[in-house]
Amino acid sequence: MQNGIRPFTFCAMNTSASETEPTLSRTPLATARDKLLFTPGPLTTSLSVKQAMLHDAGSWHFEFNALVATVRDRLLKLAGVSREAGWEAVLLQGSGTFGVEAVFQTCVPPEGKVAVLTNGAYGDRIVQMLKHAKIAHAVLRTTEDQPADPAALDAMLASDKAVTHVAVVHCETTTGILNPIEALGRVCRKHGRINVVDAMSSFGAIPIDLEACGVDYLISSANKCIEGVPGFSFVLCRRSVLLACEGYARSLSLDLLGQLKGLEKNGQFRYTPPTHSILAFDQALRELDAEGGPAARGARYRRNHEVLIQGMQDLGFRIYLDPSVQSYIITSFYFPDDPKFTFESFYRRLSDKGFIIYPGKISQADTFRIGSIGRLFEADMQALVLAIGETVKEMGIQLHK
Amino acid sequence: MQNGIRPFTFCAMNTSASETEPTLSRTPLATARDKLLFTPGPLTTSLSVKQAMLHDAGSWHFEFNALVATVRDRLLKLAGVSREAGWEAVLLQGSGTFGVEAVFQTCVPPEGKVAVLTNGAYGDRIVQMLKHAKIAHAVLRTTEDQPADPAALDAMLASDKAVTHVAVVHCETTTGILNPIEALGRVCRKHGRINVVDAMSSFGAIPIDLEACGVDYLISSANKCIEGVPGFSFVLCRRSVLLACEGYARSLSLDLLGQLKGLEKNGQFRYTPPTHSILAFDQALRELDAEGGPAARGARYRRNHEVLIQGMQDLGFRIYLDPSVQSYIITSFYFPDDPKFTFESFYRRLSDKGFIIYPGKISQADTFRIGSIGRLFEADMQALVLAIGETVKEMGIQLHK
Repeated sequence: MQNGIRPFTFCAMNTSASETEPTLSRTPLATARDKLLFTPGPLTTSLSVKQAMLHDAGSWHFEFNALVATVRDRLLKLAGVSREAGWEAVLLQGSGTFGVEAVFQTCVPPEGKVAVLTNGAYGDRIVQMLKHAKIAHAVLRTTEDQPADPAALDAMLASDKAVTHVAVVHCETTTGILNPIEALGRVCRKHGRINVVDAMSSFGAIPIDLEACGVDYLISSANKCIEGVPGFSFVLCRRSVLLACEGYARSLSLDLLGQLKGLEKNGQFRYTPPTHSILAFDQALRELDAEGGPAARGARYRRNHEVLIQGMQDLGFRIYLDPSVQSYIITSFYFPDDPKFTFESFYRRLSDKGFIIYPGKISQADTFRIGSIGRLFEADMQALVLAIGETVKEMGIQLHK
Repeated sequence: MQNGIRPFTFCAMNTSASETEPTLSRTPLATARDKLLFTPGPLTTSLSVKQAMLHDAGSWHFEFNALVATVRDRLLKLAGVSREAGWEAVLLQGSGTFGVEAVFQTCVPPEGKVAVLTNGAYGDRIVQMLKHAKIAHAVLRTTEDQPADPAALDAMLASDKAVTHVAVVHCETTTGILNPIEALGRVCRKHGRINVVDAMSSFGAIPIDLEACGVDYLISSANKCIEGVPGFSFVLCRRSVLLACEGYARSLSLDLLGQLKGLEKNGQFRYTPPTHSILAFDQALRELDAEGGPAARGARYRRNHEVLIQGMQDLGFRIYLDPSVQSYIITSFYFPDDPKFTFESFYRRLSDKGFIIYPGKISQADTFRIGSIGRLFEADMQALVLAIGETVKEMGIQLHK
């Protein structure tokens, strides 16, 4: 049988400028230099992370289960916590959203109520989850350019004793804004409420002190700052808090306590694990260590971000957020104030040049987004800025410098 | 940075005896001959399917969305149905269980009731799902060696008008038994109830006539007979039946109707898709076509099964099921009646020889299981039987020939 690999023109492979020279003389599979992903994820990953998937692992096999155990241990270590100190790491199939929803579907008692701090689509998504599960909730909204407000949370928790859980998104990738999880966590602790942090796009690159932030559940995903591939999310949580949720789960697949018990019973996922994604994640964790851990990775992303905003400002683009609340994960830029600009044409022209950017998601302003995370380096950001400059010229767009 | 690939001794790569010669002279990555998976999945897949994952696709990018559309079309064609005839294919992140649960979480109205036909762990799992979601249900149980009974379903549906949905597992991999979905489907149609078929381990290799079987929802998974890698399930369903479920979804992540609407709105998964698994699945679908489609694949699996049972019976192993209800997907064998046999030692010795089998799951008998599906050929089954013969000798086990 002929099982030739088709060329994926839209894919990126081994894409870091620092890692690969895009020569065409080598074999296509080893050197094809495809498009770079400047998105909130799935991200450009290293070739070695992807190569870890060239294996089929048995999901019941003891050696695979040992690998899952190692990955769980590594995640706790990465977070600066330990099983001895009462923490657990639970992996769950699906995207990050599945992991976030699993926390609410499993951990809020029937009479529970969740206060959701939102300033973007991901906070709003939590509200949607609670509506679907018919879980009582209250919403504390700030505008998309304003961080969540600890004082407002304090007032709400003082007045609404029914609230059992608080939920917030750390880095709201709608805009790239950072929410003050340490101050919010202190408010949760003061009032004795359970604290759920969606750290999807921050964990692994922005340091988070789980104890200082009073976190009970933190959710992130394989394909974000750890630079694995999609397939599962993970929840870091206080064991005693999760164990107290017996009988609450409204879904079998999303039963986080059931998942923990399964892992503890025989080392296995209860249902088919994304074996290849887990092999890739194990490699990604090793590469994160090799890079110097979250501090070094965060420094690379910060430098990527700085190169990006400097270059974009030099071109005359305006940034949506105030620098004081802007993360180095992803940045929202206003559309140029020129009728000749259309996002579709801009996007397609950049794609033709090998650069994939991301649309905006802000309700009150026309923006596009550029991510600084994944297997991207300064040279990649510089190349992107150069391509954006060329595209602006091609489109005849006037920018205000 | 050095990102070397660690050797995964427990993994299988490009594992078909017919495809690869296990020479050690080539580069390790291209030829490492690892363990073969004789399991119900995740399975041994072709190297080319895994190589399709050596790319990072942008989940928002139009070319990736076009690929998702192609995959959905191919699934409908594979099932012998069409969008014009009212069918849809919806992909959902997570394992097969997530897809099955999504159907119930989305499609059963608040006052609905599900009749579950069960003769094994996967039927029982559906009951667990319904309990978690607090959906009314009735259970029609047959013993693990007896297929579901259409007459019993007929009597139940005649007497219990509250039942809105019927659920059955096509190939119950607990034992390998095949349930008579065509006869059951006729009963559903006669009584006008919605018919849900879990075809996880059969779709793609055992022909299923969706119209003749009166199917409304059929669920299967990427890592079964289509020989992709895990990461998502898919649901083939009647569009009008799914569209009638507006407002029922009890979970956001598992909202199948929401997922369909998302795919139709902009071609995208609502939440991060398992991009690499989808690239692999696209390649797997091409390889299924190249093999000659489900009929040819089914014939290969049937031949694998025949070689297996002939060899195992020659060694003196006894098969749990009657041949009349035994599928060619997976086979349950009784433990030898010899105290020197322990499954753990048997399993480990086979693993050391490069063969991964599967434990039993039958409540009433001590068995182990051997799958015939995945990138396995006759020669692989013969090699397994040979290794089992050697292992029996090493362990000094007496078999009754």
